[in-house]
Amino acid sequence: MKRTTTTIAGLAPTTLERLRLVSTATLTTQLFKRGLRNTFVRGVHRVSRPGPNLVGPAFTLRNIPSREDIDQLKVFEDPEHPQRKSIETVPPGHVLVVDCRGDTGAASAGGILLARLEVRGAAGFVSDGCVRDTPEIAGMAFPVYCAGGSAPLNLVRHHAADTQRPIGCGGVAVYPGDVIVGDGEGVVVVPAHIADEVAVDAAEQESLEEFVTAEIRAGRPLPGTYPPNDATRARYAKWRGRRAKK
Amino acid sequence: MKRTTTTIAGLAPTTLERLRLVSTATLTTQLFKRGLRNTFVRGVHRVSRPGPNLVGPAFTLRNIPSREDIDQLKVFEDPEHPQRKSIETVPPGHVLVVDCRGDTGAASAGGILLARLEVRGAAGFVSDGCVRDTPEIAGMAFPVYCAGGSAPLNLVRHHAADTQRPIGCGGVAVYPGDVIVGDGEGVVVVPAHIADEVAVDAAEQESLEEFVTAEIRAGRPLPGTYPPNDATRARYAKWRGRRAKK
Amino acid sequence: MKRTTTTIAGLAPTTLERLRLVSTATLTTQLFKRGLRNTFVRGVHRVSRPGPNLVGPAFTLRNIPSREDIDQLKVFEDPEHPQRKSIETVPPGHVLVVDCRGDTGAASAGGILLARLEVRGAAGFVSDGCVRDTPEIAGMAFPVYCAGGSAPLNLVRHHAADTQRPIGCGGVAVYPGDVIVGDGEGVVVVPAHIADEVAVDAAEQESLEEFVTAEIRAGRPLPGTYPPNDATRARYAKWRGRRAKK
Amino acid sequence: MKRTTTTIAGLAPTTLERLRLVSTATLTTQLFKRGLRNTFVRGVHRVSRPGPNLVGPAFTLRNIPSREDIDQLKVFEDPEHPQRKSIETVPPGHVLVVDCRGDTGAASAGGILLARLEVRGAAGFVSDGCVRDTPEIAGMAFPVYCAGGSAPLNLVRHHAADTQRPIGCGGVAVYPGDVIVGDGEGVVVVPAHIADEVAVDAAEQESLEEFVTAEIRAGRPLPGTYPPNDATRARYAKWRGRRAKK
Amino acid sequence: MKRTTTTIAGLAPTTLERLRLVSTATLTTQLFKRGLRNTFVRGVHRVSRPGPNLVGPAFTLRNIPSREDIDQLKVFEDPEHPQRKSIETVPPGHVLVVDCRGDTGAASAGGILLARLEVRGAAGFVSDGCVRDTPEIAGMAFPVYCAGGSAPLNLVRHHAADTQRPIGCGGVAVYPGDVIVGDGEGVVVVPAHIADEVAVDAAEQESLEEFVTAEIRAGRPLPGTYPPNDATRARYAKWRGRRAKK
Amino acid sequence: MKRTTTTIAGLAPTTLERLRLVSTATLTTQLFKRGLRNTFVRGVHRVSRPGPNLVGPAFTLRNIPSREDIDQLKVFEDPEHPQRKSIETVPPGHVLVVDCRGDTGAASAGGILLARLEVRGAAGFVSDGCVRDTPEIAGMAFPVYCAGGSAPLNLVRHHAADTQRPIGCGGVAVYPGDVIVGDGEGVVVVPAHIADEVAVDAAEQESLEEFVTAEIRAGRPLPGTYPPNDATRARYAKWRGRRAKK
Repeated sequence: MKRTTTTIAGLAPTTLERLRLVSTATLTTQLFKRGLRNTFVRGVHRVSRPGPNLVGPAFTLRNIPSREDIDQLKVFEDPEHPQRKSIETVPPGHVLVVDCRGDTGAASAGGILLARLEVRGAAGFVSDGCVRDTPEIAGMAFPVYCAGGSAPLNLVRHHAADTQRPIGCGGVAVYPGDVIVGDGEGVVVVPAHIADEVAVDAAEQESLEEFVTAEIRAGRPLPGTYPPNDATRARYAKWRGRRAKK
Repeated sequence: MKRTTTTIAGLAPTTLERLRLVSTATLTTQLFKRGLRNTFVRGVHRVSRPGPNLVGPAFTLRNIPSREDIDQLKVFEDPEHPQRKSIETVPPGHVLVVDCRGDTGAASAGGILLARLEVRGAAGFVSDGCVRDTPEIAGMAFPVYCAGGSAPLNLVRHHAADTQRPIGCGGVAVYPGDVIVGDGEGVVVVPAHIADEVAVDAAEQESLEEFVTAEIRAGRPLPGTYPPNDATRARYAKWRGRRAKK
Repeated sequence: MKRTTTTIAGLAPTTLERLRLVSTATLTTQLFKRGLRNTFVRGVHRVSRPGPNLVGPAFTLRNIPSREDIDQLKVFEDPEHPQRKSIETVPPGHVLVVDCRGDTGAASAGGILLARLEVRGAAGFVSDGCVRDTPEIAGMAFPVYCAGGSAPLNLVRHHAADTQRPIGCGGVAVYPGDVIVGDGEGVVVVPAHIADEVAVDAAEQESLEEFVTAEIRAGRPLPGTYPPNDATRARYAKWRGRRAKK
Repeated sequence: MKRTTTTIAGLAPTTLERLRLVSTATLTTQLFKRGLRNTFVRGVHRVSRPGPNLVGPAFTLRNIPSREDIDQLKVFEDPEHPQRKSIETVPPGHVLVVDCRGDTGAASAGGILLARLEVRGAAGFVSDGCVRDTPEIAGMAFPVYCAGGSAPLNLVRHHAADTQRPIGCGGVAVYPGDVIVGDGEGVVVVPAHIADEVAVDAAEQESLEEFVTAEIRAGRPLPGTYPPNDATRARYAKWRGRRAKK
Repeated sequence: MKRTTTTIAGLAPTTLERLRLVSTATLTTQLFKRGLRNTFVRGVHRVSRPGPNLVGPAFTLRNIPSREDIDQLKVFEDPEHPQRKSIETVPPGHVLVVDCRGDTGAASAGGILLARLEVRGAAGFVSDGCVRDTPEIAGMAFPVYCAGGSAPLNLVRHHAADTQRPIGCGGVAVYPGDVIVGDGEGVVVVPAHIADEVAVDAAEQESLEEFVTAEIRAGRPLPGTYPPNDATRARYAKWRGRRAKK
Repeated sequence: MKRTTTTIAGLAPTTLERLRLVSTATLTTQLFKRGLRNTFVRGVHRVSRPGPNLVGPAFTLRNIPSREDIDQLKVFEDPEHPQRKSIETVPPGHVLVVDCRGDTGAASAGGILLARLEVRGAAGFVSDGCVRDTPEIAGMAFPVYCAGGSAPLNLVRHHAADTQRPIGCGGVAVYPGDVIVGDGEGVVVVPAHIADEVAVDAAEQESLEEFVTAEIRAGRPLPGTYPPNDATRARYAKWRGRRAKK
């Protein structure tokens, strides 16, 4: 499944591309510099095949606890059921982000729904609950992040309540349109209004850290190297110049 | 503060009165008989003065995790802020039920807001988070149920997102209009569409249990008495008849 | 309800009386001296009226998770149902100790069953789950220890599996016949085979600590006083002698 | 180690074979249809080599918290020690299911005991506690499910109390003889009395879902396809007919 | 036990007095205004007799997990044992703040040690673990805040490691000399270097809130009153002027 | 990166070599025999490349909760910052052990710091918090044990307070110089003063267990084999003799 570089309204064209190349660790540092300390989704990891970063704006789905008289299998016959509707309406390039209140007692999606998401061109799936069919999902290239595998169907614990409202996911606020980035460590939520500048600064930070790592590997001590003092910054400027020429 | 017997659209006139006299324990049994096992709000107790049951339809407020750039003190200057708006718009006789995702790291209300709720004639307040000013609230007759006291203001953890949508509270689904009942044990959520019949059957169950308790206190064994066999039911019928005459 | 001094097979006649006068804190120290570090039931407190120590041998009841097809209200019509049977068969002076796996999502007993236990002369009730009807139980002199109030009936979470087998309660091993002691702090489990000697040593420890407290209140520093050095022990011997004469 | 198709008293001959080919996700849906919502063992995953489904009737072992004066290394010299006895007596084709109260502070088995289980022809091992020697167990084909690796020997936390009684495992009731099924997602407990019909219906559900997945992959939307409407069901009938001929 | 108004080096003379009259809720708002969101000690409440605020600079004691070969009863014979030493050396007017890593499996102090603290003129005791002898401590005027009662002596879980180093308590950083304030809701940690200004602003905030509460009780709506607009602030200025004259 | 056999003051020359060849499971049994039950670090696993055992004396670093006014990025410019200092001063062959209070909300180190540790010849890194850059660390041969990956930088949750003091890590006491051993199961802490004898006995235990495993695989039952009776021990003595000759 080839993911195309979606142009997202309100984001600089290069922002998504930059975010595909930086780590969630770097992004949390950039967000910390801007006063945001709670941006990394807790308890969530990639359960699909390792691969490039997940990047895309959030499309949100919210679950509340299920109730036995409402949440029976027949609900899925209604095409307006919010879970099913969300999968049919998430725009290409967007990430379906699901609020499960961190409840891991049931799935919030399974193999068939995730296959449909992939076919529809969604960028990925993030849930602070679980998914089912994880043995099958482990082989998918489509990026799926969640708290793990849980076989019971969603109705055992979850009632899909609404879509495209602000939610919490893994303890972090997610507003529709916030930029979701996932790598091998986890998922970070970048507020939409600062995504462009964060992407630029994160890319620059990673360039510097690549240089610093090489210096450390070559035997330099932390003081003066990390964080870099003026001498190190000067060496970095040269290194960067040489790089740019290649 | 005198609480008037509010007539609530869609409920039999006597339903609220009946629910004021039965326990949450009895109600969960009636709901269990109807296939509903998850109706008792977890982790919540009365922090205001002991008193009669809290009874009223739910008016819901939902919080998501706060974000430092959005949730600053100035938000309260906006009369449309959902937390403040909910307090000004909850109809008399209704219960403000707040979804805090069970996060106890901050308050979801304090003394001033709860005083305003009381003045406005709300029936009570239920939150699966905390409140602040608990030493003062401990003396209020206005029924306040929550997870305990937590001094930090809501903005430390909570962003009020919207009102009158289905929420989760203490692991239980709460739909606007569901009937909330709170006693000295905790809070139960009675789905609106069965509240009338549940109220009738709960009152009858309590009458029977009052008789059974007297029998047990008088030395009868559990078998045949609780649950009652035909002989016990016959004695109960007489006892009830005598009672009705008084 | 007057509790008589039951003579329990295998225990010295004075053991239960001694245990009524010592604290659970003292008992855990005596058990620690004998290599037992895990004897205090976790997460449990007295929910009935404050009063003298609960003391008595354990009679055990074990719950496993309930299953919807088995655990319906009709099970209570069977007098052999282990929960009901345990209440009808616990010997006078014994403590019904219930293993709920620490699950607080439902009650493990309620007002009627506890009333029957009291009428039958049981010494008390200990559960690492909850009870229902706590507002009523708060007024009972009969000692009830548990994790708190939870309205839903036991069948929502618990299936009574068997009685008089070794169980875990609040993380502590409880063998039938172990001596249960509860005070205002909580519940400790004293293995039956050392209960006599522990009771003697605990009483002596409390006598010494009463003296030490008086010394500390009078201004003595901790070193030399607590633990006592030879001089303090000599003063204690005199103090004790004077006391014995009164 | 080749696992033979054991015939289990009371089960249709094909039931175990069918259960080897269906997922735990499918089984929980079939159990949900029958009113059973709590059947998936929580907190447990396969720590041995990935492979075919674990399938077999449960043979149960129960642990309570250990006590220092009882649980010393010498207990293992007694061939009647319940843990050791259970390993020597579990019938071929059965699954040893262990109740550790979810305590992960010690092992409930290790490499030598699991090797003996395998040699004896047991179908597998499930514990809601941990095992030790996980680096070695990771290479075993014998199916081992548990909460992870924990080096300390069982006596640090567990006292093996009895076998073949109803237990809880990962929050689920397990009765001796219940059919245990484990796949790459986890473990589900199928009550013995419905295992035959659940196996049949689960196999049929998987056949339908294989067809639905192909349709979704081919671009069909969820509405009408999943769940299938009459047209989809008609296409499925044909697909199934073609398959049967092959 | 009369608590004298201690003069603490580095604090304005009136700071402690002001802090005695404001709530922890007010203080967390003042700290939030200064960018400090994590200042309220989690999981801790007053277990001694209700009374005036606890106020005083922190004197810290740190526990690590105990080890069986080191932490035997004989350690208390050493007057240099950090727990005992801390009690003998905490300066009058200071608060002994204890880091128990939130472990509630044992006591961090008991009746005798707390009596000695009181006699020595300490301002109070705060621990994120438990204390023993809570039935006795419940009657003490000396302010004791902790996670509750736990009978086992500290050595079961805690090794007193050192004093007067920065610690964590209930998830909050505590530096020696930080000003501890406890009321009926819990405990807040005020960094020493801003304690004076926080005390002034908190007193002013409480004055305003007293006025606002009266307005709300008199029927004013939240908008314009809380937070106050210019008109309300003008009324407040008058009210305050009248008050000052009394 | 080749790890040299460091000679550590106070340890027999062969101790570290022996500990490289035994499992943490074996070590916990040897420690249990000496009365130490709490020696296995909870919640920690190897996040770097699988490889030989981590073995080395502990060099400790302690974190407390961070505070917004103190823990800003500029702190890293100070070469005396305890986290940075610890990395520059941990002696070759030692293990940096970090106390994060089990808080997984932020990293306690990242790729650059761990690279510096490796270059400096440290034996490994153990933290009961998380690290960042786990996708990169997963490929390192340098042994890194922690609770998992968490992108946010340490300042979000942690303030490095001091080094080389006794700490808790994963619920276990760690004194500077205690011998840390990590394998594919986790990390065990061996008190320094018994490390030599534990290493000898652990090696002998593993030799016996290798023989026992072979016997079990060959079909012998547990009784008489594990634990071994005299006949088995005699066979073992022969087996061992044959081995020694090879």
